[in-house]
Amino acid sequence: MNKLLIVGTVAFDAIETPFGKTDKILGGSAPYIGLSASQFNVQSAIVSVVGGDFPKSYLESIQAHQINTSAIEIIAEEKTFFWSGRYQKNMNTRDTITTDLNVLTKFNPIVPDAFKDASVVVLGNLAPANQANVISQLTNPKALIILDTMNFWMDNALNELLEVIKRVDVITINDEEARQLTCENSLVVAARKIYEMGPQFVVIKKGEHGALLFSEDKVFSAPALPLESVFDPTGAGDTFAGGFSGHLTKTNDFSFENMKRALICGSAMASFCVEEFGPKRLLNLEESALAIRLQAFKKLTQFEL
Amino acid sequence: MNKLLIVGTVAFDAIETPFGKTDKILGGSAPYIGLSASQFNVQSAIVSVVGGDFPKSYLESIQAHQINTSAIEIIAEEKTFFWSGRYQKNMNTRDTITTDLNVLTKFNPIVPDAFKDASVVVLGNLAPANQANVISQLTNPKALIILDTMNFWMDNALNELLEVIKRVDVITINDEEARQLTCENSLVVAARKIYEMGPQFVVIKKGEHGALLFSEDKVFSAPALPLESVFDPTGAGDTFAGGFSGHLTKTNDFSFENMKRALICGSAMASFCVEEFGPKRLLNLEESALAIRLQAFKKLTQFEL
Repeated sequence: MNKLLIVGTVAFDAIETPFGKTDKILGGSAPYIGLSASQFNVQSAIVSVVGGDFPKSYLESIQAHQINTSAIEIIAEEKTFFWSGRYQKNMNTRDTITTDLNVLTKFNPIVPDAFKDASVVVLGNLAPANQANVISQLTNPKALIILDTMNFWMDNALNELLEVIKRVDVITINDEEARQLTCENSLVVAARKIYEMGPQFVVIKKGEHGALLFSEDKVFSAPALPLESVFDPTGAGDTFAGGFSGHLTKTNDFSFENMKRALICGSAMASFCVEEFGPKRLLNLEESALAIRLQAFKKLTQFEL
Repeated sequence: MNKLLIVGTVAFDAIETPFGKTDKILGGSAPYIGLSASQFNVQSAIVSVVGGDFPKSYLESIQAHQINTSAIEIIAEEKTFFWSGRYQKNMNTRDTITTDLNVLTKFNPIVPDAFKDASVVVLGNLAPANQANVISQLTNPKALIILDTMNFWMDNALNELLEVIKRVDVITINDEEARQLTCENSLVVAARKIYEMGPQFVVIKKGEHGALLFSEDKVFSAPALPLESVFDPTGAGDTFAGGFSGHLTKTNDFSFENMKRALICGSAMASFCVEEFGPKRLLNLEESALAIRLQAFKKLTQFEL
């Protein structure tokens, strides 16, 4: 089995949507990425850090999906990273209520030896310094490095972020962030500018409007699945990255044609994520669910001229 | 050749975008629909009204695209409908500066005898009373009637609008308007509610995010073509309706499979419209342009699992 290395946060999330609210539940970018990628039968490991308050049962629920958690450092005297937010009625706008970085300020990612030669690496949303640190520990020159980032780092660590962007193969970024990073309104122009910064593939996430893949002069569009109800969008972007990277790890084919499939896999996984609170749906996905949903994407998009 | 009947406004538009501004140029829903549909070699006619100030050369430029303009009534002592607007920097928001209805308040649409049996009828954005009046003049029980409307009529003539919606086969409506009409946030639920109001096909336009087609339990998604620059979005929705209805008129096949193709044709035509001010690009489209752009949509969306 090909190896997927995931670096990201492991957190407590408390979420409020028009449909209800949760207490502290399992959150953070890494569990969403890992649980989503686990649908593709890959050998994966998470590099992260939690506090002494992080329940063993949460780690076990991750391990139950064949995800190696031995590189999730536990710092007993610290508290786990905590985020809480509230979605407005249209579900497209969310207000952050609390961001307690806690143990995250002590994070010093150590890639386990067995995963230094991973064929695919996902750098989840984290401080660019941490992401650069991880890249320096990798030993497989052919590894596909996928970077996810957020406007927070553009505002607070732009130079470090630009240095990381130079060193990765794929960037996933949302539309508003792509515009912010490049000062361009057109996503085509923004994608080209980001491409010129380093990554060979630029994935622009548009939430309920799907995602775009750019490389050189090529472009591909994946829609989001139109859904009756979006219960909770938390983690959808990370789940997308998990499906995308899971498919690429499984197939070990980094051509544009296969990236297109990966984009559809990411969109399909994201469509599950939003169906329940937090990662609940990902933790309980039936074996046939992904194949059925991929066919739904086929039906949704394919036509004959 | 199959016949397409177009009912809509013929107007003067004055447009300001971040790229420049125009004086009064040819505008209104009907010219955009007609010019776009003319790419599909159909026999079409526009039913509309203009004032004595409307230049003969504008009518001739429409006629030059094999569009019958004999049912564009000229009321010499009145002025032509005038709209002016300004787009904000992101091009997604526009402010209306002027709406002078002028001659439009006198509009009493008379369908020419030769087009009462049209196989496809597009009711462009107009007062629902005018749209109902046109439907009553039609003689072909198998005609496909396509309705376009706007939030203005939901605010000001909701009951009349709902009566028209009952009598049409297809509705094209933008996402925010679909939400307003149904008080539903999910476009899937909104589309089902509109479907239950009468139309067998519900097309939801999402601007730069493409369009969705719903019928019964079926759904199809067409992206918009990602463009380097959107020069002027004026008329893009009408141009979409023109490409959509033009393809359906040419093929006379109203199946879901063919509606999918029609959606792609509409999106392709809309992608031309935004490339220049007003209908300029539609007036000067090279013969091979549409076929090339349809292939671009294929490339943009097609994948193998």
